[in-house]
Order: sequence, then C-alpha cells, then structure tokens
Amino acid sequence: MPPILHYATLLSALGLSVVHAMDNGLAITPQMGWNTWNHFGCGISQDIVVDAAKALVANNLTQFGYEYVLMDDCWHADSRDPDTGAPRADPTKFPDGIKGVADQIHALGLKFGIYSDAGMYTCGGKFGSLGFEEIDAKTYAEWEIDYLKYDNCFNEGRSGTPKISFDRYANMSNALNATGRPILFSLCNWGEDGPWNFAPTIANSWRISGDIMDSFDRFDERCPCTSVIDCTYAGFHCAMTRIIDFAAPVLQKARKGAWNDLDIMEVGQGGMNFDEYVTHFTFWSMLKSPLILGMDLTNMSNETLSIITNDAVIALNQDDAGSPANRMWKRDVSDGGNLQLWQGSLVNNTFVIALLNTSPKEQTVEVDFYDAFFDQGKAYQQMSWQLSDLWQKDSQGKWGKNIGTFQGSMKVTIGT
Amino acid sequence: MPPILHYATLLSALGLSVVHAMDNGLAITPQMGWNTWNHFGCGISQDIVVDAAKALVANNLTQFGYEYVLMDDCWHADSRDPDTGAPRADPTKFPDGIKGVADQIHALGLKFGIYSDAGMYTCGGKFGSLGFEEIDAKTYAEWEIDYLKYDNCFNEGRSGTPKISFDRYANMSNALNATGRPILFSLCNWGEDGPWNFAPTIANSWRISGDIMDSFDRFDERCPCTSVIDCTYAGFHCAMTRIIDFAAPVLQKARKGAWNDLDIMEVGQGGMNFDEYVTHFTFWSMLKSPLILGMDLTNMSNETLSIITNDAVIALNQDDAGSPANRMWKRDVSDGGNLQLWQGSLVNNTFVIALLNTSPKEQTVEVDFYDAFFDQGKAYQQMSWQLSDLWQKDSQGKWGKNIGTFQGSMKVTIGT
Amino acid sequence: MPPILHYATLLSALGLSVVHAMDNGLAITPQMGWNTWNHFGCGISQDIVVDAAKALVANNLTQFGYEYVLMDDCWHADSRDPDTGAPRADPTKFPDGIKGVADQIHALGLKFGIYSDAGMYTCGGKFGSLGFEEIDAKTYAEWEIDYLKYDNCFNEGRSGTPKISFDRYANMSNALNATGRPILFSLCNWGEDGPWNFAPTIANSWRISGDIMDSFDRFDERCPCTSVIDCTYAGFHCAMTRIIDFAAPVLQKARKGAWNDLDIMEVGQGGMNFDEYVTHFTFWSMLKSPLILGMDLTNMSNETLSIITNDAVIALNQDDAGSPANRMWKRDVSDGGNLQLWQGSLVNNTFVIALLNTSPKEQTVEVDFYDAFFDQGKAYQQMSWQLSDLWQKDSQGKWGKNIGTFQGSMKVTIGT
Amino acid sequence: MPPILHYATLLSALGLSVVHAMDNGLAITPQMGWNTWNHFGCGISQDIVVDAAKALVANNLTQFGYEYVLMDDCWHADSRDPDTGAPRADPTKFPDGIKGVADQIHALGLKFGIYSDAGMYTCGGKFGSLGFEEIDAKTYAEWEIDYLKYDNCFNEGRSGTPKISFDRYANMSNALNATGRPILFSLCNWGEDGPWNFAPTIANSWRISGDIMDSFDRFDERCPCTSVIDCTYAGFHCAMTRIIDFAAPVLQKARKGAWNDLDIMEVGQGGMNFDEYVTHFTFWSMLKSPLILGMDLTNMSNETLSIITNDAVIALNQDDAGSPANRMWKRDVSDGGNLQLWQGSLVNNTFVIALLNTSPKEQTVEVDFYDAFFDQGKAYQQMSWQLSDLWQKDSQGKWGKNIGTFQGSMKVTIGT
Repeated sequence: MPPILHYATLLSALGLSVVHAMDNGLAITPQMGWNTWNHFGCGISQDIVVDAAKALVANNLTQFGYEYVLMDDCWHADSRDPDTGAPRADPTKFPDGIKGVADQIHALGLKFGIYSDAGMYTCGGKFGSLGFEEIDAKTYAEWEIDYLKYDNCFNEGRSGTPKISFDRYANMSNALNATGRPILFSLCNWGEDGPWNFAPTIANSWRISGDIMDSFDRFDERCPCTSVIDCTYAGFHCAMTRIIDFAAPVLQKARKGAWNDLDIMEVGQGGMNFDEYVTHFTFWSMLKSPLILGMDLTNMSNETLSIITNDAVIALNQDDAGSPANRMWKRDVSDGGNLQLWQGSLVNNTFVIALLNTSPKEQTVEVDFYDAFFDQGKAYQQMSWQLSDLWQKDSQGKWGKNIGTFQGSMKVTIGT
Repeated sequence: MPPILHYATLLSALGLSVVHAMDNGLAITPQMGWNTWNHFGCGISQDIVVDAAKALVANNLTQFGYEYVLMDDCWHADSRDPDTGAPRADPTKFPDGIKGVADQIHALGLKFGIYSDAGMYTCGGKFGSLGFEEIDAKTYAEWEIDYLKYDNCFNEGRSGTPKISFDRYANMSNALNATGRPILFSLCNWGEDGPWNFAPTIANSWRISGDIMDSFDRFDERCPCTSVIDCTYAGFHCAMTRIIDFAAPVLQKARKGAWNDLDIMEVGQGGMNFDEYVTHFTFWSMLKSPLILGMDLTNMSNETLSIITNDAVIALNQDDAGSPANRMWKRDVSDGGNLQLWQGSLVNNTFVIALLNTSPKEQTVEVDFYDAFFDQGKAYQQMSWQLSDLWQKDSQGKWGKNIGTFQGSMKVTIGT
Repeated sequence: MPPILHYATLLSALGLSVVHAMDNGLAITPQMGWNTWNHFGCGISQDIVVDAAKALVANNLTQFGYEYVLMDDCWHADSRDPDTGAPRADPTKFPDGIKGVADQIHALGLKFGIYSDAGMYTCGGKFGSLGFEEIDAKTYAEWEIDYLKYDNCFNEGRSGTPKISFDRYANMSNALNATGRPILFSLCNWGEDGPWNFAPTIANSWRISGDIMDSFDRFDERCPCTSVIDCTYAGFHCAMTRIIDFAAPVLQKARKGAWNDLDIMEVGQGGMNFDEYVTHFTFWSMLKSPLILGMDLTNMSNETLSIITNDAVIALNQDDAGSPANRMWKRDVSDGGNLQLWQGSLVNNTFVIALLNTSPKEQTVEVDFYDAFFDQGKAYQQMSWQLSDLWQKDSQGKWGKNIGTFQGSMKVTIGT
Repeated sequence: MPPILHYATLLSALGLSVVHAMDNGLAITPQMGWNTWNHFGCGISQDIVVDAAKALVANNLTQFGYEYVLMDDCWHADSRDPDTGAPRADPTKFPDGIKGVADQIHALGLKFGIYSDAGMYTCGGKFGSLGFEEIDAKTYAEWEIDYLKYDNCFNEGRSGTPKISFDRYANMSNALNATGRPILFSLCNWGEDGPWNFAPTIANSWRISGDIMDSFDRFDERCPCTSVIDCTYAGFHCAMTRIIDFAAPVLQKARKGAWNDLDIMEVGQGGMNFDEYVTHFTFWSMLKSPLILGMDLTNMSNETLSIITNDAVIALNQDDAGSPANRMWKRDVSDGGNLQLWQGSLVNNTFVIALLNTSPKEQTVEVDFYDAFFDQGKAYQQMSWQLSDLWQKDSQGKWGKNIGTFQGSMKVTIGT
C-alpha cells in the first residue's frame, strides 16, 4: 500500500518564519538521529550505544544530517546516589559511566541524548525525574548530554488540564535552560492535554500520540483513540498510517524550534514492506517530524539504507520554510481504506504533493490542482507545473526525476 | 449555493433587554468596522491602516455604521521597551507610532483598535501580553485606543477549565477598565472552555471557533471539531457555513454589550460568489455577530459594496432587541448538504426568516409557519404575514420589497 | 403519544432507605408546589404570587401535597441595599416586601420559595448571589423563606470540574444551614459537572438538564447535548421526552432528601395534548422528580386539574421507598421514534410499570415479565400479577382500576 | 455463549518484570478471595463473615490460592466514636467487634479485609473516611486488617482531573503505609479520571468500571458509558462481557503489585449458565483481574466449585509473568454480537489464546496464527504449536488436555 510521490517546482515565494520556541536555539529544523528503543527496548548497554554511533558514521549517515545518538530507557542503576540524590547509570552495563559514553559519542562528531520521565518511575520501572528536575538537569549537563527525551509514565495523576501538564514539563525545561548548556528538550507525553498548544514555548518537540507499532495500518486496541485532540488514553501499538491520521489536524502548530514528533521511525524493522517504509519515511519528512531512526544500525539492508539516505526527501524535512504539509482531502474507497492528497509549501518557489493509498487495491486518481493549491489560490491553481518524482533518480543519479509538465490536473496511479 | 431570504413584517411586541455585560457601556449593538488581518495578514504598516480608514470614509461606509478601524497582529517592534516593559510599535512600519496613527484615525471621525494576545507571544510571534496586562492596557489608553482584540496563542497551558480561561482574560478586562478609557474588549480564544458561558461579564464579544476561511462550505481538516460546545482544538480554515453550524447552539448566550463573534467577514475576498457572500453577510447580521469587514477597502467591486451597504440587512444586526435568530430546523437533502430554516425576533412587531441551502442543487421547500413561529405559539402561527424581501429594492430604491401576504405556510425556491 | 400505565400489586418487600443528604431534614419525598417561571417568566409581582397561592388553596391542591409557592427570577430591585449589601425586592412590584408576601403565603398554610443565582447576575439580569451567600441566606431567613432555587447564569467561569461547582454551591448550602432555618435547597446548574455525583450532600434536589420546553418530543438545537453525563452546554428548550432520555442513566443517584429535578412541569400550558400531559405527569412522578406545577393556577381547565390531582400517580412520587423507576429497555420503531419499558419498586410489595411510545403510530407490544422484573429475579418473573390501571377509576371512583391478572407477559396497545 | 479455550505450549522466553507499585509488597500476583457484597449486599453480620471464612476452608479453596475474606459495606455503627472519632462496628451485628472477627478469620489461616469510602458517606450510607484517613487506617491496623476496599460515593465533587482523584486516594494510601502494617489497598473509584494512569504507585488494584451485573451481555442503561477511557458516569449494572470490552484498551497498565480490577465475580450467582460462568472465570484470570468470589460459599453447587477450582485457569491469573492477555481482534457477526480473539504471554515459553463468541449462534472461525502471534513476530507465527484445552482434563484427571499440534492456523467452533 505505497504512495506515489511527486514534486512540483514552480514560481512562488514563501514568507519567513521566526523562531518562537524554547529558548535554546536548537532544532531550527527537525532533529535527526537514532534511538535505542525500537530495536533494543530495555536491553541496552554501553556497547550497543557506542556501536550504533560508530555504525552511524560508518554508513555516512552524518552527511545526510543524522547527528543525535539517543539512549532511551533503562540506562539507570537501581537507585539514585543515596548521598546526593543524583542519577546514576547501571555500572555493569555502562562501565565508563554516561560521561564516558558521551565522550566517545562526541569523539565521533555526534551528539548524545539521554532519557528520563516526568514521573516517579520511568516506563521501564527505573527512577523518574519528578521532583528531581534540578539535580537531573545539572547532572545531564555535567555528563555533556545534548538531548533529553522526557516521558510520562507514573506521573502521579499530574495531568488533566493543559496547565497541570505544562507546569510539570516546564519544571524540567527551566532546569535544562538553567544549566547553561543547550540541551534539546524532546517532550514525550503522548499528546495528553494538547502539547501542540502548551509546549511550543518549553520544548523543541512533543510526541502527539501513543507509541508507534511496526505496521502499515493494522488497528490495535491498545491504541484506542480515534483522534488526538480529545484523547485521554494514548496507549501504544499505533500503526504508521494511524499516526498520520492523528497528526493531520495539529500539524500547523509546529514552528521552527518546536515540532510535532510522530515517534521513532520503524523503517528497516521488518514489519512493513519496502514501499510502505518509503511512505513512512516520506510522510515523516513532509510532516516535519523529527527523523529518528530506530532499526539496528549495525545490520541494515541496502534497501533500508536507500530509503533513509534519499536526500531529496530529507530536504523536505529540513526545508527552511519549516512548514508541515497539509491533508487537502481524504476520501473513502469502496474497496476499504482511503485515498489522501497532501500538499506542502517549501522555500524557493517549490511545493510538494503526495498521495496516500490505504486501500487494498491499486487506485487511479485525477488530482485537481484546485485542491492541491487550494491554500495558494487561483493563480497557482491555473499555472502549469513541472513535476519531479522524488523516488526516481535523474540522469545524473540524483533523487528527483523530471516527469513532465502539468496544468489543471494530473492523473496518478497508486499501488497497494 | 446561495439562500433566498425573506422578511416578515407583522404584529408582535418583544420584551426589553437590559445590559449585563462588561462594565464599559460599549457594543450595545454589535460593533461594526474593518480589520487588517483577512486581507493583509502580518504585512501591515501605518499606510495600510490609514489608507483603509480613508477608504472607509470615502466609500461612505460610516453612514452605515462601520466605525472601527482594527489593526490586527504584527504592528509590534521586536521587543518591549527594555526600561519600562511597555509595548512598542515597529518604528519602520509605523513611523508616527501608534499614537500618531490613532490621531489620524480619530481625525477621520473613526475609532481605532489594536491587537494583542493572552500568551507569551502573539500568533504571529510578536511579544504577547500575558503577565503584562496592566502596562499594556495603560499604554493602549495613552495611545487613545478604542478597541482591543485579544488572542490566545502561546498561552502556556492556561486553559482547560472555564475558570482558568476566565482568570487569564479577566486580568486584561480588569486592566482595561482600570484605565478609565472605554475600550471595547474583543476576546478571541476560539471558543475554548466556552466563552459564551464565562465571558459575558468580562468582554464585549468573544470568538466562538477557529479562524474563518474564504469558502462557502469546504471541509478542511485544519478546523477539525464537529461542534464548538466540546471542542478542544479549534484550529483554523473554518468554512463560512461551518461557522453558522458552530454558532447554532450558543447563539442565545449573546446579550446587549456581549456578542458571539463569528470572525471577520470574507465578503469581497474572492473565494465565494456573489450569492454566497450575500448569504454570509445576511447570516452574520441575523446572528448578531460583530460586522467586521476584511477585504481591501481601497479596491472594492461595486458588487461587494452593494452587499455591505444593504441597510435593511444591517438593521437586522443593529436591531434594538438584540436577539439572535434561531435555527428552527436543519434537514439533510438527498443531493447532499442540507436545508435550514432560521427565524429571528426584531423590535416593532417584526420578524425575520431565512432559508439556507448548502446542497448542490436548487431546492423548493414549503415553510410551515408552525415551525417559523414555534417560539411565538399558535396565534402567530395562524396569522397572515406581509413579506418583504430584503435583497430586492422597493419602488423607491430602498432595500426590502413587499412580495405579498402569506398565511400558514409559504413556498420558497432556493438556488444553489 | 401517550403511554398506558399499569400497576402491579403482589408479594415483595423492599429494604429501608436512610437519609444521607443535606442536613436540613427536608424533601424526604420529592417536594411539590408551583413556580412562577413557566407561565409568567420575568413578569411577576406580589399580586401574581399571592393570587397563585390563593388559587392553590381554592383548588384544594394542598390536600394532594402541593405546598410550596415558588417565586422565580425577577423579584429584585435594581440593586442591593447600598449600605448593607442585602438583597432588596422591586418596591413597585412588591409593595409589601418579600417578608410581607411570605406572611400572606404562610397565612394560607403554604410555604414560600425564592430564587437566586450562583453568579454575578441572575439569568434575568438581576443581581446574583456569588460572593453574597451569607448576607443573602441571612436575609432569606429573616424573610422567613422556606425554599431557595439557585441558578447558574453568569458564573464567572466557576465550573469545569465537580470540585469547582461543588465549592460554589456548597457556599450557599452552608450559608443556608447556618441560618438555623430549614430552607429547602434546590440546586439548578443544569447538570453541569454532574450534580447527581457532587450535590447529594449539599442540596435537596438538582436540575439535570437545560430548561424544559412545552413540547412532547420536538428536537430543538438550543438543547444540543445528546446525553447529560458529558454535556458541557445544557442550553434550554428541551422537549419533555428528551428530559426523560436525559434522566435515564442518572436516576439511581437520587435518595431521600436528594432528588433529580426534571424541571418545572408544563402540564396545562398548551403545547401538548391531554395524553401527552398524562405521560408528562406520570413520568415526573415515577422518576421521583420534584412535582412543581408551572401553569396559570388561576385559569386551569378541568382536564388539567384532573391530571395533577391523580392521587394514585402522586403516590408513586411520594412513595416511602424513594426509589426512581428504571428504563428496562428502549427499542427503535420502524415508524420512527421508539418504545420504552419502565419499572419501579414501591413499598408494600408493589411495583409500577409504564410503557412509553414516542413513535407517530399506535404500537402493540408484548411485555415480557423477564424484562419487567429483571432486577428482582426469577421468582418475580414467574409470579402472577394483579394489574391496576392508574389512569382509570375503580367502581368507587378512585384512581386505579383492577384490569386483571397476568403471568409471564402481557400484551399492551399504546396510542399515539 | 461460551468460549472455547486453548493453551499453546512452545519455545519462548519472556522478560522479567520488576515491581513498581504501592510500596507494601502485596499482590505480586492478583489477589484471590471472597467478598460479601454480591450475595449479601448490606445485610451482613459477624456470622455471615465467619461462616463464609469457614466454608472457604471447608471447600479447600485455600489450596487454590483464595485467601482473603472481604467484608464489604455496612459493617458500621451509626456513627464514629464521639470522643475519638475512630470508626466503630455495628455492635448488634458484630458483637465481637471487628478485631474479634479478624481474630477468628486469622485463626482459620485466612486474611481479612474491610471496606470504606473516600467520601462523606459510604455507598450504603454509613460514615465515610474522607478527612478521617489517618485515624481510620490506624484503627484498621489495630484491628489487624489485611486489605482495604476503598469506594467513591459522596465524594464532595473531589474528582474531575487525575490530580484531584490521585490526591484524595493517596491520602489513604499514605495513611495505610504509615501504619507499618502491610494492608492491600484496593482502590474502587469505578475508573473515574483513569486510575490505570494515576493509581499504580498508590494502590494494589483499581476498579475500572461501574459494578458488575450477573448477566452475560444484557445492555443496561444504568451502565451508560461505551468506553472507560473517557467515561464520566460509570454507573452500575454492567454485564460481564461489557466489562471485558471496557478492560481491553487499559489492560497493559497493570503490573506486579498493581492490577486492573474487573470487579467481584458473579460465578455461581445464578444469572448466567455454566458455559457463561466458565467464560467469566477464564477471562478474569487471563486479564489479570483479582479473583474475588461473590456467591454464597455456604451453598455452592458442584458446577460452581468445578469452575472456581480449575487450577490450570487459575495459573493463568497467578502466572509469574504478570502479563494480561490482549484482544487481537474483535469482529462483528451478521447474527448480532461479535467474535473476539485474545492472546496472552506466560512464563516458561507458553501462551494462552481464547475465543469469545457473544453472538446468539454457534460460530466456526479459522484462527490465523499471524493474528495470534502478531506481537511475537514471524518466527512464532510460523512455528507449530501443541495445543492444550484448559477446560478438558487429561488422562490423569488434571485440567489441560492435549488436543493436537497446529501450524499456521487452526479451526475452532464456538458454541452459544
């Protein structure tokens, strides 16, 4: 059920955006990197983290913008330091300590992230940071951490209004800023209380839903909400295209330095086919999600590598306009599932459109430029457009093949 | 998809209403004027504002009741005055300062409005008023401002219960009252937490939904709620007839000095046809929304001018009874869309009824006076009524042509 | 669309209930009386109130249990006493003052109620009691008031969680108790924040929905919620059978001294026919709503009088078990509307069942005693039952005619 | 409408879980025992409680794990001790006092539980513990109580956000911990404000819904919510399979020492047939609910005894992995009702699957192992599995008969 994607290059200027977000100057474009969770879960160690960092470099991923190595849950010792209350790493799994790992990551030219939780315990049952924000932020800075993913388990009921959630997360945001070290703050409260509304001034990104599942569209009861705007139980096991559905209404709340996080990608994990992972990567890019890889970097297929290194698609994500694509329509298909038209604005007079087919059959659709350029108005709707397919290479081997000029509409056939 | 509208003039007395609203004596009838946002967005300047004011006068719009010139977002300097914390205008775009612009507006016999936001930043990313209510209100009064539109972006999570929202907006309401200058307070929190319930004592009007889009009825995912009474994400890009749907249940919360604001009108902006704009203007009038123009006043068509100067329709809005029309029924049409019957009570024994057709085809409907006068009871249902069509002119060239007398029911054909 | 009602008299004992409600010893059974609002609205005066009281006596309604004369909104002077802050009546409309009216009501052997609002203004725009609870309660006690209806308009955003609403209403409850005079406290917040959960310890009754409309089943957009358990905008103009739907899930929260209030009755007001008013009165009785009349007592038809004086039906309401009837099933009818089976437990081994038909056609239904006695179990389901029709008179002219004995099921035909 | 249940024994290792719950070391597996409420309601006494305890022993139920005897509501005297404020038992019904009953229970080798309410009154109208948490916990410890069920009636509006509910229940949790006596804390707020989110650190279990009704699937209006994740009125009379529906999305919030409580079981109460009770018991086990019996222990049928002593099914509940089963799919059936596939992970490389049929007819379904092992991935989906039917006995008379080996899928016929 893959989409066909097209670029449209033409005359149009976009306005400038100014950063009004958390005051750390980070994530002016969505952050890119790798995280331990999707592949390794709680079974992490110093070797796993450092080996992944080395593989990131060895695969030349840094040249595509991937720079953060993120160590998720379960790095912790059984308890905090009994004297100081400071966090400690598991001494067996991390013999060099977190600072030692950070040094090795930094020596590779990469940045290093850590994980904690705005609650009594982390989701994996380790000590949380609720009530320990200052000493934790201070310790992270001493360890030369560059990034904090901050989760929501065991939060002692401190949710229910945007104010309650804001206050809980602002405590850590302020503590991080107070360290003087720029630490990217990745808020992860699964969309509770609407972080797209309350978080832009205190975080560089915020998760919008329950955790992703490595599936194109399977419904799973553990991800029960039908929308994120009034979801009181985010759950987990959310299929990839369900997260796209979740994102649709809130995308426009993103801005430079403050992004909607659609969760770590599943590309290369095995639960979807090649075309589905192409769709996954394209939409995460177009919708301005952080691009965080989740597969085993030390054991990647060439197919996987080809997807995550499509620099034309990455450019959609890192485009300086910082403008997420919008869903222009979503239409049920009689075969089941639906078709969707998405469009996004880019700098330098370019736009991107994408069609998504979640039905079980191939679909042919006539894309009316009235819909594609509804936001831009008549002049754009009537122009002729040169189309570039971002998933084909041109004669010089660069992603983005010119496939002709279209006016008024274009006919597209989308596989399954 | 335009409606046909009819007036019914006959015998009936309405009770008196008393003002119980924000204590500034303003907006006894819904405010009328013009706002920069819909046409100019963030690209405003002193010249744009003053030229619009001159055009308002030159087009004789003042004689129809339009009196406020409203300068929306992006008038701001990069920062507040570092010494006093007072707000400052962009010195390049507003060389005479806001006070200078106000003087020019006042010299034209008009009133002048400004914009700010009950948050850390405005929606356009300028400095907001949260925590600066007193100095901002004081400065506005010194600048001789007559009107404040007060927005909701970047509000630091201060929403989620009516109490939290009330407190945040009451801070500015009290600050405005404390200046001693009557400043119309136009609350704009997009309907969050039910301003129709909490705002009548602290504001002269309140927005009920996400921002309007210049479209008759297109569904747009960025305006995701299906109702405003439990909407937690108002969004924007709300089509004109969707806002009418949104307004239907809450209309009766309006009263003299305290109005539901259906947003700046799109009449003359180009996204709807003549009949659709006639519908737009008629419903904004009947439903007692503030009548705030949004097109480029310096470049209006005669068609546009003819709509916004229909004094018989404006009289519906400014009628002394202050009673918004009610939707008596809404019926799905097999062609798609629906038909709606609206009725409103006016002073001097008159009523207004209107039919709205959102289906793609012409519809003929028999309006039963049992429905039209359900609220008034049997005597009114059985009376004979003289009908006056407000969008035709009589023999003397005045809007409102007598089109006959009807009893029990009347048959109406409504175009598309 | 009237129901047919049947009594079943047989062997069964019910447990005792104990009062755990507001600590004033009142409303051990639902209160009965008359209120000015439905017929007179804001147009009340001393004469209207006293004349109604006299008519209540003259029509012998006191012998059926009607004892409260309730003066609703708009008795107020323009302002409180400027020196003491105490409430004052309109001196023109109430020349003898409220105390004078109370004396006249008491002299007739009746009890007297007043109205105020837990907000800045009453719904009719008079001064409210928010922040004046103590002086108001004290003044009411000095006036020898016996009953307070306490409304919810202009509440300054003080709603949104049960805690916020509880605190606001508890202020008046405590103030009333502190006077030492037993004053029945009739909470009227239209069901916001679930008074069936938070109010039983602070009030004798609580409204569950927006105001009633004198219609059997007309849908009105001004009463927009589909359920009261998560309604954030109660509105008004709620048809009679919609209020029955609203009540169904929350009925069991009632107990002695603490009742669900389905609003003032519309019986005799003219918007429904005889059978519909019979249904209205029967359900208000069975569902243990306060029985508050709302028509013009000085100008009642014999039909109206015959409904409100059916002592067998009133006995359902005042039954010592204090147990509201339950809806055992609700089934859509292909003609539109639905059929409903209700059953209630009474003292002395008796039960009541009622069928409600909201479809436009006569319906015949076989009532299975498995359903009627689902709560009581197999023994009751299999017993034979003597049926008594409460809307027919027996040979001695008493309401309740024996119509035979049934076992297992009974066939009923219900008119429209 | 009974399910057929199958065990699959094969190669698979599960990770270890660590306890992160209320700090009392209890309920590492779900608690098992008996409660007075479902059979005796408010009509309890010392004899009833002690006789039940003796019957528990006499029926050898202790060897299956049942160890708690739980005395629910209505053990109370009319009032607290007027001097000390301490709780007191009804001296007539409990002549030996609660401590005396506890001694007798303990002498039988059992543990003893009591009931109170986080409100002004208990649901049965006795004195509640709100504001009396410390003296009540202290008294319970003095009485040598081992378990507290803590209800939610008359809570003075102290709900509406997770924070408000957490604080109210944490008061008792902290008071119990402060006694030094390990007392299992069974939170019963009917799922309000999401205890699966806020309660794991303060309680050993939490109810998720309104009270159970002794029915397989009858819809009852008194249990009105369609989901527990946004239910504001839990009600009661919830049919058994509706509670299974309610549990589905929140099951994964359970962990060792902190369980979702699906309510006291109705097995043996008479409202369902044998197969339905088998389903009931199996699902309560698989879903890791506390297994609390509710029938009259002194008068049990052999059928009932055979259900509650199926040690293979109990082992699902007490399995050391502590992992609730998940619903893999739920499919509507054209005959009405639906079919459901459930799967759970156990220790020692075993899994459990169960099919549930709520339709009125026998259904045959092909279970695809892709679905059954979706969470485990391809290797498990393709393995061959040895199946053991937990409701048949093997040749040695032990529950769990080997019924063959299956690969890829298996066909199952499920009765009604």
